[in-house]
Amino acid sequence: MKAAIIGGGVIGGGWAARFLLNGWDVAVFDPDPDTPRKINEVRANAQASLPAISDTPMPDIGCLTFSQSLEESAQDADYVQESVSENLALKHRVYAAIQEAAPQVPIGSSTSGYKPSQLQEGAVNPASIFVAHPFNPVYLLPLVEVVPSHRNDPQIIDRAKEILTELGMFPLHVRKEIDAHIADRFLEAVWREALWLVKDGVATTEEIDEAIRMGFGLRWGQMGLFETYRIAGGEAGMKHFMAQFGPCLSWPWTRLTDVPEFNDALVDLIAGQSDAQSGQHSIRDLERIRDSNLVGFLRALKERNWGAGRVLNAHDAARATAAAASAPPAVSQAPMTLAQMQVLPGWIDYNGHMTESRYLFAASETTDAFLRHIGAGLDYVAAGHSYYTAETHIMHLGEARLGDRLTGSVQVLAADEKRLHLFIRIGTEGEAVATLEQMLLHVDMKAGRACPAAPEVQERLFAIREAQATLPRPSAAGRHVGQGRA
Amino acid sequence: MKAAIIGGGVIGGGWAARFLLNGWDVAVFDPDPDTPRKINEVRANAQASLPAISDTPMPDIGCLTFSQSLEESAQDADYVQESVSENLALKHRVYAAIQEAAPQVPIGSSTSGYKPSQLQEGAVNPASIFVAHPFNPVYLLPLVEVVPSHRNDPQIIDRAKEILTELGMFPLHVRKEIDAHIADRFLEAVWREALWLVKDGVATTEEIDEAIRMGFGLRWGQMGLFETYRIAGGEAGMKHFMAQFGPCLSWPWTRLTDVPEFNDALVDLIAGQSDAQSGQHSIRDLERIRDSNLVGFLRALKERNWGAGRVLNAHDAARATAAAASAPPAVSQAPMTLAQMQVLPGWIDYNGHMTESRYLFAASETTDAFLRHIGAGLDYVAAGHSYYTAETHIMHLGEARLGDRLTGSVQVLAADEKRLHLFIRIGTEGEAVATLEQMLLHVDMKAGRACPAAPEVQERLFAIREAQATLPRPSAAGRHVGQGRA
Repeated sequence: MKAAIIGGGVIGGGWAARFLLNGWDVAVFDPDPDTPRKINEVRANAQASLPAISDTPMPDIGCLTFSQSLEESAQDADYVQESVSENLALKHRVYAAIQEAAPQVPIGSSTSGYKPSQLQEGAVNPASIFVAHPFNPVYLLPLVEVVPSHRNDPQIIDRAKEILTELGMFPLHVRKEIDAHIADRFLEAVWREALWLVKDGVATTEEIDEAIRMGFGLRWGQMGLFETYRIAGGEAGMKHFMAQFGPCLSWPWTRLTDVPEFNDALVDLIAGQSDAQSGQHSIRDLERIRDSNLVGFLRALKERNWGAGRVLNAHDAARATAAAASAPPAVSQAPMTLAQMQVLPGWIDYNGHMTESRYLFAASETTDAFLRHIGAGLDYVAAGHSYYTAETHIMHLGEARLGDRLTGSVQVLAADEKRLHLFIRIGTEGEAVATLEQMLLHVDMKAGRACPAAPEVQERLFAIREAQATLPRPSAAGRHVGQGRA
Repeated sequence: MKAAIIGGGVIGGGWAARFLLNGWDVAVFDPDPDTPRKINEVRANAQASLPAISDTPMPDIGCLTFSQSLEESAQDADYVQESVSENLALKHRVYAAIQEAAPQVPIGSSTSGYKPSQLQEGAVNPASIFVAHPFNPVYLLPLVEVVPSHRNDPQIIDRAKEILTELGMFPLHVRKEIDAHIADRFLEAVWREALWLVKDGVATTEEIDEAIRMGFGLRWGQMGLFETYRIAGGEAGMKHFMAQFGPCLSWPWTRLTDVPEFNDALVDLIAGQSDAQSGQHSIRDLERIRDSNLVGFLRALKERNWGAGRVLNAHDAARATAAAASAPPAVSQAPMTLAQMQVLPGWIDYNGHMTESRYLFAASETTDAFLRHIGAGLDYVAAGHSYYTAETHIMHLGEARLGDRLTGSVQVLAADEKRLHLFIRIGTEGEAVATLEQMLLHVDMKAGRACPAAPEVQERLFAIREAQATLPRPSAAGRHVGQGRA
């Protein structure tokens, strides 16, 4: 699949990175000679963060090219995303050139201000031009507002939403076209009020940022406005909340009925306060801090399968289903590679290495995959039986670092109806960074004691044990701590 | 320390829970006979979430009483927080009764609408009445807007901010009193615009919530408005961003210059959409989901020492310093208990037990405490040397569960200038749930090879080794995996 990215700024670069990391080939067109540098900087940020919110291995990164013309970029493209400046005449010229080369290709516009009917004016094929408005950083935030007009072909809009979903995004279908769509209306309202507060000397930019991120900002990342207020209404519900809060609308709480004069003095005031607040960090640093925070939020939401986390889990699941075609064989004579992981920011210690408990975590992930493989996964546990780890020995052989891809492989050293003796290798780029030897016991969880595994689990397990019986015994197996090395 | 909580609704209950869990005694006054049930429900939510964002043991929970009068609740109080309805005459009556019993006590008001000068009207001692405006859930969100008027005693305001900081909050000093303070002006602007979008049929409550939580809501929980836009400006900076975005102020993007009529039809429309969106969850469920999400966000920010996470880390550090008075002796003949931990929600596996890698995590915390104890802590690492774990053996003896307090103790089995052989017991309520035997090597991190520890570290380490030389050797020391148990 090939995407054409028209416009190579922060937004276009974010789109390019999202497509590339999801395995699409990307052709970028932007006459600015500095475009390759800018795109590669955004891509580096994306590569440092997007894989960290995926629990399935990412596809191979797509091929990035820089086109000499709009027509060249659009050639054979399956999707075009336009992110040029907010200049309607320029956008019209871009669409005309693209539709001359590829009249049917879906063209999404990143515009935050124009309505789709404005974008479509004078087009050869208005049916394939629509708004696909993303949020910065495009490679991490799921939201994309998809806004069609009545002139759009619904099938093209459906296909565009499918493509955006395949990129891990959340296409929000905006049913009525309206200036600034939905989200930016709120941003505009807050921005206008913030300018008043700064101009009037009520608060500095830093105080305003703290007022947001220490309070309601944390609420809004996981529930929105209405669900948050629904809770505030308590048992009496949403109507009760509105009865309390509604009348405030006529109170003199905001300056919104007026617009501050936007002059150099206001710009200088705000730019100066912003320097004082954030000037100790470079923009590059701030980008990395922001991305790391967003990865943390998104992973928290994934763990809870909520909001943006639910979107990401669905994306993982779709990808895992696609990968199931390449599942490991039921029985293997070699150690079986069953887990693929990536070292995440929270796994790093103050030495800059993977923290030692994460080696055991990686082994647990591998053992869990092995247990699923022999039919003792979550359903089996829900029915009352499980394998519990009794004892583990860990050898540290190397150091894993942030972003490293880890594999976990299993060799069965021994197994009987109750006991399972495993040797696990955690490796990166073919080198073991740790080996773990584990003894697990099959347990009746209700009775709280060991018991034989189910016959079908024993059958699968013993087949692997027999197949691996001739594998050499690892030298680290049977070691005790402090034993001399061979 | 004793706090008086006046008004026992969702906000008063949140304050009561925050004070109690931070070790304060709390007297609640609210004439509603249903108050104890309501307060206990909020406290239960707080107990399930607030300890999960603390990395130091919480103090013993304070004593909760329900007072029969305002005067009784204020008796001997060190701080009073008023959270009654937004009725100025009622608030004045409350302050009069409190100041009759305790004329000097600081009185913070949770009001979102009134200015401090309005609250102070007619008071016997206006100098001790101020706004302390929190955000729901009060027990989790750090923000509290502290707004004095020119009539306040600055020392009382400073003391109030100290108290709020001791509760783990972030007091934002609002320097100019203004209707609705700072944060609620933004909430009001967004609320007003949201009502228009629903009323005009542009978006449902659910679509609006998605537009927020899938996009800018995630940004605002960790940076605010200005820092986010500073990044959007890219290398060209804040002025460049403003030049791009500023002119939009005069575009017809928002309906803010007008106020929607707040009538039954609008209330029914919104309440109906909210039911369709969230009605499958009870309010109690939504509270727990929200709190769990907030815990996840706050822990992510703690790991990164950013925003609200920096506030929580500072709170932990202050508490740890206070606990250092009860530090263990430099040398002990018995195994040394050096770490106190609590099993957090993220530590639990699908069996409901502490996940196995967290036993090693608990041991690492204990080993780190031991290394700090012998002078090989973070400063030592920063100077280029560290102890690396080479090998670990773990025996699982029991199961730790959510909320359990864990201790970690260390016995030195052997030590020389380069090697450190430890035996660690992880226990809960005096019973070991796991034991770990570890071999650590002292490393020159730059050279990447083992080397002797600094003489002062060796000295402290060897003193402990000698003191513990007569301790019996644990039977699990020297085991290999699968060895028969004695």
